Amino acid sequence: MFSPVNEKFLNKLRDILGDDFVLTDDEALSHASRDETEDLCFPPDVVVRPKTPQEISSILKLANIENIPVTPRGGGTGLSGGALPVHKGIVLYLDRMNKIIEIDRENLFVVTETGVITETLKDAVEEVGLFYPPDPASKGSCFIGGNLAENAGGPRAVKYGVTKDWVYGLEVVLPNGEIINPGGKLLKNVTGYNLTQLFVGSEVLIAAFDDPFDACQTVPAMFHAGLNPSACEFVERDVIQMALQHLDKKLPNSDAAAQLLIEFDGNDEDQLSEETEKAGMVCMEGHNDLGGGAIDVILANTGQRVNEIWEIRSACGEAVKSHSVYKEEDTVVPRAKLPDLFVGVKTICAERCVKSACYGHAGDGNLHVNLLKDTLTDDEWETKLPPTITEIFEHCVSLGGTISGEHGIGWSQKAYLHLATSYEEIKLMKSLKNVLDPNGILNPGKVFE
Amino acid sequence: MFSPVNEKFLNKLRDILGDDFVLTDDEALSHASRDETEDLCFPPDVVVRPKTPQEISSILKLANIENIPVTPRGGGTGLSGGALPVHKGIVLYLDRMNKIIEIDRENLFVVTETGVITETLKDAVEEVGLFYPPDPASKGSCFIGGNLAENAGGPRAVKYGVTKDWVYGLEVVLPNGEIINPGGKLLKNVTGYNLTQLFVGSEVLIAAFDDPFDACQTVPAMFHAGLNPSACEFVERDVIQMALQHLDKKLPNSDAAAQLLIEFDGNDEDQLSEETEKAGMVCMEGHNDLGGGAIDVILANTGQRVNEIWEIRSACGEAVKSHSVYKEEDTVVPRAKLPDLFVGVKTICAERCVKSACYGHAGDGNLHVNLLKDTLTDDEWETKLPPTITEIFEHCVSLGGTISGEHGIGWSQKAYLHLATSYEEIKLMKSLKNVLDPNGILNPGKVFE
Repeated sequence: MFSPVNEKFLNKLRDILGDDFVLTDDEALSHASRDETEDLCFPPDVVVRPKTPQEISSILKLANIENIPVTPRGGGTGLSGGALPVHKGIVLYLDRMNKIIEIDRENLFVVTETGVITETLKDAVEEVGLFYPPDPASKGSCFIGGNLAENAGGPRAVKYGVTKDWVYGLEVVLPNGEIINPGGKLLKNVTGYNLTQLFVGSEVLIAAFDDPFDACQTVPAMFHAGLNPSACEFVERDVIQMALQHLDKKLPNSDAAAQLLIEFDGNDEDQLSEETEKAGMVCMEGHNDLGGGAIDVILANTGQRVNEIWEIRSACGEAVKSHSVYKEEDTVVPRAKLPDLFVGVKTICAERCVKSACYGHAGDGNLHVNLLKDTLTDDEWETKLPPTITEIFEHCVSLGGTISGEHGIGWSQKAYLHLATSYEEIKLMKSLKNVLDPNGILNPGKVFE
Repeated sequence: MFSPVNEKFLNKLRDILGDDFVLTDDEALSHASRDETEDLCFPPDVVVRPKTPQEISSILKLANIENIPVTPRGGGTGLSGGALPVHKGIVLYLDRMNKIIEIDRENLFVVTETGVITETLKDAVEEVGLFYPPDPASKGSCFIGGNLAENAGGPRAVKYGVTKDWVYGLEVVLPNGEIINPGGKLLKNVTGYNLTQLFVGSEVLIAAFDDPFDACQTVPAMFHAGLNPSACEFVERDVIQMALQHLDKKLPNSDAAAQLLIEFDGNDEDQLSEETEKAGMVCMEGHNDLGGGAIDVILANTGQRVNEIWEIRSACGEAVKSHSVYKEEDTVVPRAKLPDLFVGVKTICAERCVKSACYGHAGDGNLHVNLLKDTLTDDEWETKLPPTITEIFEHCVSLGGTISGEHGIGWSQKAYLHLATSYEEIKLMKSLKNVLDPNGILNPGKVFE
């Protein structure tokens, strides 16, 4: 289907980039063969490290002529295999495009290259009193360009939106090598927040429940009561215990069946206290026939305690990963359907004897379902996994949901795309992809064949 | 290029819709021949009034087979001629699809048909304690579907965003008649506000300036000071006086060269007063070497006074329209460039002896520039208008801006699209349009040829 990469082609890449930035050594190829998606491994033929859009344009024009696939790579933290060169060819590694070009305080915009680490960007704007809200779990190593590609979210999305809500202009190298500049510093929206205005601080409630279903039911009740938390996270007992063990930390009520972590931020101390107090009452009072209130609610209201809670929450992914071979699914439903999603997932897993551990952005209806290999044999795992995933996704779609809230389809979910997307929509996506990339050289094998 | 509409074709439409909803009488054709874009008039051959997506699908499939153009029409309030059937054929009038299907308080979503009047939708959600923020000037008669098509804004966009920021799922009839359902009740964002939480009220400052440039300079200063107004509008003297005359109302300082109308909303009385007071000081203190502060600032802090101010602001468009033949341009620049945009517009108009009257959403950098025929002869008007518009748009683009903030390109601005959009981008848009609508039957003649 594609042509092989030969020495003549490598020399053409060296003409564009210089010898230092065309890599074929084992270390470079091995690094580019993996992201954070389970244990997938696809080494490319060559890794290139361009510095400018013009260099990317030249690479893409050459790749079209020579029929070589090109797979862009950012921080390599993706959870759907989007950065993996499944058809070999070129990995376009964007780590050298790591400059923040301008922080425009007058217009509240930042102009940045694609390879800047998200946390670096957040810190840089905070230094001049501004706030970039999206905070994916991988923010310490992911690139802002990858955040755009996957439309990254994170806990604060429930109040402040996802990456796309904060992007106003782009410089785009099209698959054919043409460069376009849609958008710009033009708003018809808020495009930045002044920290001085928004934050005197934040407080987090940790509400422990003896039934995860009750915790899920409390989430829509919170919003129904007129509260607008800046984060509302759900964590199952197994996950919180794995995270605490991973960090060697303790948390009261860590043996409760589930926890909600509910954060409020604001610019008025009194109002903040009032909201937190009201949220605590919503947690305690219960929202079903059997009561269903929290068994305990703890308040973290110092900067240090708030940070500790977020450190525990942030460790959940890593803790699950180090506990067992796993497969993470990124289900999302309308917020009020979260209890039904959770119960369905648990029932399906119990029936199929697959262990699961769930946590996620409950305020968004976004539940990360981790299926664990645990004590299953390799054969059992391989056999049980696909039908379990299919059934979970079918249940999710039946609740008005879809199969990825923030991780994307990439390579690892494409077998399931048809469960959430109609034949007509997939056909349309393919037609649009074909207009943009008629030779199919850009990131082939992702989303659909 | 297209086939003519004959009786046989009309009968096929009648088979789909029934006789009552296939209209060829003079009144129906005349109504569909105009929108609010100057004095343009393009009568169609037939107006159809479908009730369901399935009927629209059947009409589009038929139109593709018979090669007849189809132009959708909502409330007919557009300012760029988007709804005008410039190649005749069918007008797809969506007034019968006017049901609000569901207000989902659990998930904070509303599900609505396309032909619901925006204000009806706003009122309906407010009745159950929710808030739909976009508020285009035409909200009393425009349809929500048209708001999506043009991505309508309005004064409150500066804080709450434009229409696209509030849309999460769609049922779309593609030009080929296929129906797709992208999105859904899935958030990774705020999707509704509880009024109870957000609003105890709003206050408006009316700041009068003796130089419009000073007013423009005050706008970025306001945001720089950490304030986050829910509206920040600019109105030139001529426009405010036309509006007052139109309504037979009075306003203090109405002879000042320009006014800023700055609204704050919030859920805490004290904080609201504090913000308004701080904004008043930002207005008074001046932001250039010559001072440049407001000559007076008045506070409207009762519901009735706030409504009166918005009534005057809302009348600006109608007042200019009834004053003179005019052409309205919808320039938008990065907020801090608003003073440069304004001065440039005034200089260009003075040099070319064309009268202009400006107002708009200053907080968004969005200035509506009305060029007035006034005492010019028809010949002078026809001769002077195109080069004046070109020069204004070139100036706007040189400031990092573009040629339409919220009205769209439609028919009336397509001659100028190339000023703001590169050859590569236009080529790409045409390719995408061609995939979606290979026979070019849907709304032909708009945006580009």
